[in-house]
Amino acid sequence: MTSFAAQPKPFLHALKGDTADRPPFWLMRQAGRYLPEYRKVRARAGSFLDLCYTPKLAAEVTLQPLRRYGMDAAILFSDILVVPHALGQELAYVEGEGPKLAPIRTSADLKRLTTGRLHEVLGPVYETVRLVRAELPEEAALIGFAGAPWTVATYMVEGGGSKDFGHVKRFAYGDPGGFGELIRLLVEATTDYLSRQIEAGAEAIQLFDTWAGALPEDAFRRWVMEPTRAIVEAVRKKHPGIPVIGFPRGAGSLYEAYAETAGVDALGLDTAVTLDEAQRLQKRVTVQGNLDPALLLVGGEALERAVHDRLAALGAGPYVFNLGHGVMQATPPEHVGALAEMIRRWPETRKGL
Amino acid sequence: MTSFAAQPKPFLHALKGDTADRPPFWLMRQAGRYLPEYRKVRARAGSFLDLCYTPKLAAEVTLQPLRRYGMDAAILFSDILVVPHALGQELAYVEGEGPKLAPIRTSADLKRLTTGRLHEVLGPVYETVRLVRAELPEEAALIGFAGAPWTVATYMVEGGGSKDFGHVKRFAYGDPGGFGELIRLLVEATTDYLSRQIEAGAEAIQLFDTWAGALPEDAFRRWVMEPTRAIVEAVRKKHPGIPVIGFPRGAGSLYEAYAETAGVDALGLDTAVTLDEAQRLQKRVTVQGNLDPALLLVGGEALERAVHDRLAALGAGPYVFNLGHGVMQATPPEHVGALAEMIRRWPETRKGL
Repeated sequence: MTSFAAQPKPFLHALKGDTADRPPFWLMRQAGRYLPEYRKVRARAGSFLDLCYTPKLAAEVTLQPLRRYGMDAAILFSDILVVPHALGQELAYVEGEGPKLAPIRTSADLKRLTTGRLHEVLGPVYETVRLVRAELPEEAALIGFAGAPWTVATYMVEGGGSKDFGHVKRFAYGDPGGFGELIRLLVEATTDYLSRQIEAGAEAIQLFDTWAGALPEDAFRRWVMEPTRAIVEAVRKKHPGIPVIGFPRGAGSLYEAYAETAGVDALGLDTAVTLDEAQRLQKRVTVQGNLDPALLLVGGEALERAVHDRLAALGAGPYVFNLGHGVMQATPPEHVGALAEMIRRWPETRKGL
Repeated sequence: MTSFAAQPKPFLHALKGDTADRPPFWLMRQAGRYLPEYRKVRARAGSFLDLCYTPKLAAEVTLQPLRRYGMDAAILFSDILVVPHALGQELAYVEGEGPKLAPIRTSADLKRLTTGRLHEVLGPVYETVRLVRAELPEEAALIGFAGAPWTVATYMVEGGGSKDFGHVKRFAYGDPGGFGELIRLLVEATTDYLSRQIEAGAEAIQLFDTWAGALPEDAFRRWVMEPTRAIVEAVRKKHPGIPVIGFPRGAGSLYEAYAETAGVDALGLDTAVTLDEAQRLQKRVTVQGNLDPALLLVGGEALERAVHDRLAALGAGPYVFNLGHGVMQATPPEHVGALAEMIRRWPETRKGL
């Protein structure tokens, strides 16, 4: 274990399995509506997609939380659905209702998708990465990201969010060959997309598989683990050593199999993963997570106790402090400040235990 | 292992840990919109709540799936939200949007609730139980049910369904004393409600904790496991030996701790539980589940394979075949017929393996 300050980019060291006197931290959805400065930029940007595709504004909101709280990593401000959008699927964000896409439900529908304009549409995202990297504090790292194929496919097939995943499961279970084509297309596009982010300056990548927990084991292995493995392998071929965080939310007892097969450096843990389980997984990979975002909403003693429990249980192994899901919109910004302070004070707190 | 036909109520035997040449089966939400005969009754009933509170109609829809498919158990047709309704909380079902309740968000709001009219409001439910029991085929058993306190509280506090459980977690984490009062009230009301169902003829009970997986370990132990334990203990004091199925959906690695603490006879497993994990749990309790309802929607080879895998992995231990979540509305009724046939043919299929 070395001193945190002695490591030029502690977040990257943690992903490679190193430990320090305190874990690095960042928060999923750390750039977002709970910050008044975000809401200001958002109001200027037109639509949500306009914000994602306007490098100056996207770079600005990416950096905002680091200015306030000094996180050890910034995550590119974007959305997982820019990939289907860049593949030619119509996409709109309806205020208060979430994303709406013209659904792809059969093999025949796949003809509407093409990789031909991928980098043209996503060019502004790469430019955002360059702008952020240029302005980033030197001890902080920049995370690029994409949705994992299964999760992106759920939105593409359902046409938006879903409760029961009826359409996407009908496609996946009823026509695995056709659905496999969609997944292959996403593996290819996601690999290219992440490679360009890395070339533009991303120093680590995270694959978000938000709806991984909706699948039973067989389908989880086929549509979550295998496509993730394929992407990780292909990205590493172009960019050896790039650290990869996988976040198969809701994977339950399949977290370990996922880590092994997908070959990720770090596992994002959802709120349901117990600390015992996290310690077990930590013997194999760096773990990241998994404070309940609602505790950040509530603050006070409940927050302090849960943060302390995580630091005490996981702080000695390779660990990145984070939430188990994104920051909630109603979160008071001062609670995030209190959290940052607790993590920074951990080396002293621990001595006093 | 005895012959299935030799056991007067095979479902009850399975809950007590016995095995037979094939497992008994029933399906969560087996009475519902996928059945044309249900839709006919539903159209006559006025509101959804009217259907729940009209014993003749509720009994009729409870029995419909058994007539078609010969399930080994009927489950009372009702809704978990009749308990808050009977405690005095305003409740309406909005077509296409789900339930809407006047939310309870603070200790002060609890004053709006009272147990005074509980059995008066719920009387028609007990009458439904009596009617169903009188008409039930003698080899089939009748399951009574209630929502577990945590899940019922999520609806009471959120005022309906929720994505992030922000309000209920704010209450539970921010004012555990006040939230504990709500949970205690639900423990008491649910215990009384289930006891009356048993007195009216329910032969087993299931506690649905649909949103158990939204809580991290500490809160899961406090708001899922402990209230369930309290209900099981109190119900068993009045009705020794009554079999209890607990369904803490999304419990992940906490399923085992739940079974141990709550003292249930059987565990309902959600779709994410692997067959390995199910076999491990089966050494301790009867397991029930966990076919993905989307496979019943799709039918064909994918359904057959998944049903076969479950029967082969779990059929030799104490097991109740079921889904991992409720039947989906778009499910073709003939797929349920094919499933019933596969289970009934299992003793011969197994011999041929």
